[in-house]
Amino acid sequence: MYIQSETQIEVRYYETDQMGIVHHSNYIRYFECGRHQFLLDVGLPIMELEKHGIMMPVVSVSARYHTPARMGDILRVVSRVEKEPMARIEVLTDIYNQNGDLVCDGMVVLGFIHSDTRRPTRIPAELLEVFRKADRERQAVLQEIQ
Amino acid sequence: MYIQSETQIEVRYYETDQMGIVHHSNYIRYFECGRHQFLLDVGLPIMELEKHGIMMPVVSVSARYHTPARMGDILRVVSRVEKEPMARIEVLTDIYNQNGDLVCDGMVVLGFIHSDTRRPTRIPAELLEVFRKADRERQAVLQEIQ
Amino acid sequence: MYIQSETQIEVRYYETDQMGIVHHSNYIRYFECGRHQFLLDVGLPIMELEKHGIMMPVVSVSARYHTPARMGDILRVVSRVEKEPMARIEVLTDIYNQNGDLVCDGMVVLGFIHSDTRRPTRIPAELLEVFRKADRERQAVLQEIQ
Amino acid sequence: MYIQSETQIEVRYYETDQMGIVHHSNYIRYFECGRHQFLLDVGLPIMELEKHGIMMPVVSVSARYHTPARMGDILRVVSRVEKEPMARIEVLTDIYNQNGDLVCDGMVVLGFIHSDTRRPTRIPAELLEVFRKADRERQAVLQEIQ
Repeated sequence: MYIQSETQIEVRYYETDQMGIVHHSNYIRYFECGRHQFLLDVGLPIMELEKHGIMMPVVSVSARYHTPARMGDILRVVSRVEKEPMARIEVLTDIYNQNGDLVCDGMVVLGFIHSDTRRPTRIPAELLEVFRKADRERQAVLQEIQ
Repeated sequence: MYIQSETQIEVRYYETDQMGIVHHSNYIRYFECGRHQFLLDVGLPIMELEKHGIMMPVVSVSARYHTPARMGDILRVVSRVEKEPMARIEVLTDIYNQNGDLVCDGMVVLGFIHSDTRRPTRIPAELLEVFRKADRERQAVLQEIQ
Repeated sequence: MYIQSETQIEVRYYETDQMGIVHHSNYIRYFECGRHQFLLDVGLPIMELEKHGIMMPVVSVSARYHTPARMGDILRVVSRVEKEPMARIEVLTDIYNQNGDLVCDGMVVLGFIHSDTRRPTRIPAELLEVFRKADRERQAVLQEIQ
Repeated sequence: MYIQSETQIEVRYYETDQMGIVHHSNYIRYFECGRHQFLLDVGLPIMELEKHGIMMPVVSVSARYHTPARMGDILRVVSRVEKEPMARIEVLTDIYNQNGDLVCDGMVVLGFIHSDTRRPTRIPAELLEVFRKADRERQAVLQEIQ
């Protein structure tokens, strides 16, 4: 499985700190923006999930900081899933600035829980199928190009 | 009616901006912290309100900025209600730093709505009574002192 | 004087609170985003100001909340200046959602200070001229249209 | 080396999200609060560092989420350094709620850079000595207890 999605984020003034650079906690938020766009592109908007009785709490987060971003920078947030989700889904994200420099990369792992019982579950079959479909479509596009 | 309450807030690093001072939007959040402490002191914790089927959305906000606050400053947040709540409640807040300088003051107006219908309502009688009781207790304390 | 500028903001998930709506403090931040776009459009990017030795601290803020915004909403942030800046500048902002509903409106007053001494000053003549030029250009465009 | 420090953080309303729990990005900010208290306790307040011409940018962050925290929770933030800092310093943090449940744990790696050149450096000898002194003092206390 390899599904990728991209979105843009403009750095806002209040996201910068005393050093004039984006506070490191905000990239975790940018990851989330990228992830929501990813889910939207796949066909699973976060609001839809709730209708399936599913929530996706964050299990863990990691991030490495490379080039600082500054107010007004237009960041390219590239999110991808490389492993079929099971009990969990791993979303990898790379963030680049307008010069193409890698600003930050990281991984967020999310679980699946039933929204009523709040108990963990494997990804429901119909949701997994959405991911698989997105993966097949991407492969089809790739083959057409070649 | 005159009910007053006080709490302390320590300025956190990420709340400051490039100028090294607390970003002005954060005082609106400090107002909220003060307001929650106020409601707690009155005997109406925000979570209790929900049990009464009531929510208190913010209707308007105003703030004036006097002395900038910086990381590590210990702020004294003084909230008070001077008018009996009806369709709305007005909470006035003054924020001082550890030197006694007025940092920021402002007013937040909140409405009362039914949490199920989301329609406006006057403050329910039993909640109003909680405010009146807090007011009477304060007056009693004042008279004892004199 | 009447200068107006517009920008778009997409509501991010972490900007919403337990009620599922944008936390009221975030509109103060959206005002700032709108204001920065306004200054950019006028020809005075916030970073430029610093080169003139000028900073613009926020003196006061007021906001009224009308329709709640939710995650994914695309907000139209319209900022305008209707009075020639002197010791202060008043920026009015209206925020609309994608349905054209007024979400929030407000006013932010900023002062001018020397960045080295941090003392108040009137707007420097060369900066005022930038505002006047923007105003003249807008009037010229209006006359052309008529 | 083993130096530990502790601080308390009360969860604020606006730090919670639609699910009613603290947004995961905020723990990264709590880590920072804990870290600043740690540095203060060691004898190296973040503002002091700047006087030494040193800044400590965040190089990487990781966090695992265990029990969700909610508004009003009083969190115990325990930070520790177990390895002598060299080119980098690793700060481990555990966050517990008032019931003693582990809410979140993680590690933040910071580098040392010269604040003028912004180039990386090893920790200056006089700063390293501050850490060593804190470590010796802790060992002395431990031996007294035994």
